[in-house]
Amino acid sequence: MIKVNENFLKLQAGYLFPEITRRVRKFADANPNAQIIKLGIGDVTEPLAPAVIEAMHKAVDEMAGRDTFRGYDDSGVGYEFLRKKIIENDYRSRGVDLDLDEIFVSDGAKCDTGNFQEILSDRNVIAVTDPVYPVYVDTNVMAGRTGNAKNNGKYTGIVYMPCTAENGFVPKLPVEKVDLIYLCYPNNPTGAVATKKQLSIWVDYARDNKAVILFDAAYEAFISDDSIPHSIYEIIGAKDVAIEFRSFSKTAGFTGLRCAFTVVPKQLKAYKTDGRTVDINPLWNRRHCTKFNGVSYVTQAAAAATYTTQGKKQIRQTIDLYMANATVIRSSLTKLGYEVYGGINAPYVWLKTPNGASSWDFFDRLLQKANVVGTPGAGFGAAGEGYFRLSAFNNLENVKEAMTRFAKL
Amino acid sequence: MIKVNENFLKLQAGYLFPEITRRVRKFADANPNAQIIKLGIGDVTEPLAPAVIEAMHKAVDEMAGRDTFRGYDDSGVGYEFLRKKIIENDYRSRGVDLDLDEIFVSDGAKCDTGNFQEILSDRNVIAVTDPVYPVYVDTNVMAGRTGNAKNNGKYTGIVYMPCTAENGFVPKLPVEKVDLIYLCYPNNPTGAVATKKQLSIWVDYARDNKAVILFDAAYEAFISDDSIPHSIYEIIGAKDVAIEFRSFSKTAGFTGLRCAFTVVPKQLKAYKTDGRTVDINPLWNRRHCTKFNGVSYVTQAAAAATYTTQGKKQIRQTIDLYMANATVIRSSLTKLGYEVYGGINAPYVWLKTPNGASSWDFFDRLLQKANVVGTPGAGFGAAGEGYFRLSAFNNLENVKEAMTRFAKL
Repeated sequence: MIKVNENFLKLQAGYLFPEITRRVRKFADANPNAQIIKLGIGDVTEPLAPAVIEAMHKAVDEMAGRDTFRGYDDSGVGYEFLRKKIIENDYRSRGVDLDLDEIFVSDGAKCDTGNFQEILSDRNVIAVTDPVYPVYVDTNVMAGRTGNAKNNGKYTGIVYMPCTAENGFVPKLPVEKVDLIYLCYPNNPTGAVATKKQLSIWVDYARDNKAVILFDAAYEAFISDDSIPHSIYEIIGAKDVAIEFRSFSKTAGFTGLRCAFTVVPKQLKAYKTDGRTVDINPLWNRRHCTKFNGVSYVTQAAAAATYTTQGKKQIRQTIDLYMANATVIRSSLTKLGYEVYGGINAPYVWLKTPNGASSWDFFDRLLQKANVVGTPGAGFGAAGEGYFRLSAFNNLENVKEAMTRFAKL
Repeated sequence: MIKVNENFLKLQAGYLFPEITRRVRKFADANPNAQIIKLGIGDVTEPLAPAVIEAMHKAVDEMAGRDTFRGYDDSGVGYEFLRKKIIENDYRSRGVDLDLDEIFVSDGAKCDTGNFQEILSDRNVIAVTDPVYPVYVDTNVMAGRTGNAKNNGKYTGIVYMPCTAENGFVPKLPVEKVDLIYLCYPNNPTGAVATKKQLSIWVDYARDNKAVILFDAAYEAFISDDSIPHSIYEIIGAKDVAIEFRSFSKTAGFTGLRCAFTVVPKQLKAYKTDGRTVDINPLWNRRHCTKFNGVSYVTQAAAAATYTTQGKKQIRQTIDLYMANATVIRSSLTKLGYEVYGGINAPYVWLKTPNGASSWDFFDRLLQKANVVGTPGAGFGAAGEGYFRLSAFNNLENVKEAMTRFAKL
């Protein structure tokens, strides 16, 4: 008799974003004339950079000729031309040395952050921030590292670390001993950043406790403050204890193309139950090459183009555009009396819902009265209740219009 | 203390294809003038069809304009324009009705066949053919459904079903009761096919035993015999018990683009330990939308183009070209006295190594003496020892040259 993985049955409701899509579609169907402005799912709106488009056309033409056609990416972990550019531009420029075989190109940071736990024991105690990007939690529920969800939506067996205005949305060290820690800075959903000093505390904790940090840096390109680290490897000792996830999705508008990468330092060790060490890099390589088959050549060529002189300039312009939107959102909502966080080093603004409204109630009200889509904080965890996320991914005109509608709300 | 998933440590040596790549690279480095002909990994060599190229250029241009730009594929399971074409062309045309939400577009059948076991309990007994595509086995080892490997390379806890010349490389029903059965027809690596009658026996077994069949039909486009089913759903009752995996990789030369799909019928049920039924379709949807983020829009547009009148004609021409190669390989090796299977309804020829040579020894000899790369049968399992796979994915000139070198061996 075929049996299901009953851990999947512990998962609560639908995954956040499909649920938002469902509610928006229902509203749109009932109100076909409504001009809906989406500041919700965090999807980019600006077209790809001209340098990227040019590189893709060239790559497509290569796929049309027998001598230039590319089939499987034999390495399984990404073309060298891309991994070299990543190392040179994203790391060497910030004083971090990495080897080629420490970079694993993939089709998304969502996939990588979701899959990485597979190579680790289901006995590890995991720690996540609250609020949190739901994928970190849900993939651990699926893997059986948790019990059932409690009434407040939290799963037993997971250590939740509250991120509040009081701690600047960077959690305190947990009282319990934890083995695997998910951190995301610049943070989704709060838009908060972590300083070098704050990250050092976590790196030291991991070193002292033989723990590992999964560091999601998908939004590093949005950092405007020079003192904020872009990579966890800017912290001394981090290579021994941290995996880093990066993505082209928000950096270069690749949400519809799918390209990301993960850094797995060769010096990073985990342990067998008998205490002996195991290198993590070859384990991830084995997982990556067995359950994944590489990223489209056309997409990898597109990613490489983001590192050319023109490419860098063009993607910077788009990021500046989004961050100008964030500034408008922050200042408009502040003027309207909202309590507002984020939006300075990240494309997300995190606001307190007015009058203690629940975040899904605020979602529905905003959709129905202002035809604006945001993301309910509760979708990111119990501590997100009473908060709401607005994304800066849109054009200035729409953002201004959304703010006008907020004013009338 | 961070602990590894020790199941990964049970995995034997490197994954087959990286090991082949390593040996070929070593030989090529030492013999820079050798004209190596690759009939090994099963990667396509012909360029993409003109209709596909045209669709990709158009899709790239759409990504360059704000009004036509596409970000996330909101459904998470593939654009409707592609899923509609799949249903119409691959299924309705063969008398199989499917709903849109039974199709899940992905970045590869390797990924899908590797990931599908995640939604099923680790208590299920799995059955695989021997020889077998290594991904089916390795992903179950990683998930902890097996013990250690024995001396013959077989893992304890897996039911291996020998596929030999005697049973036409279609296994007999197992004596043990099994829950999850991996079948691949046309078969990789043997090139064998299963008749409707043979598949019916398996569908009936699954229905009688509440088992599920994971049916890998990645090579269905190579079937030339009209009586051979292309889909397992051509068998009555299969929708209750079978998942089907398809791919554009070999059908349309997409190995370097990455597009595939999985069919999960809504009527297919699995069970909880208490015996209650659970629908599998929403479980896979949840896994897919949580741990995966869709396929590149450009790639989905490319896949859709394979279903246009021109696209169909063009990809058929390329398949015919590969199958002409298979015919040359079959007839040449038969003349040379080799015992040869497959190559009629599949792009693989499965040959017995001469004089009882081990398959890796034959691999090395063929590489060194003839500069031809094939795949050792032992890489596909214990029963593959003494066999060797040659792929028809090359151009006719290279295939003929490879056969000339075989003659001199």
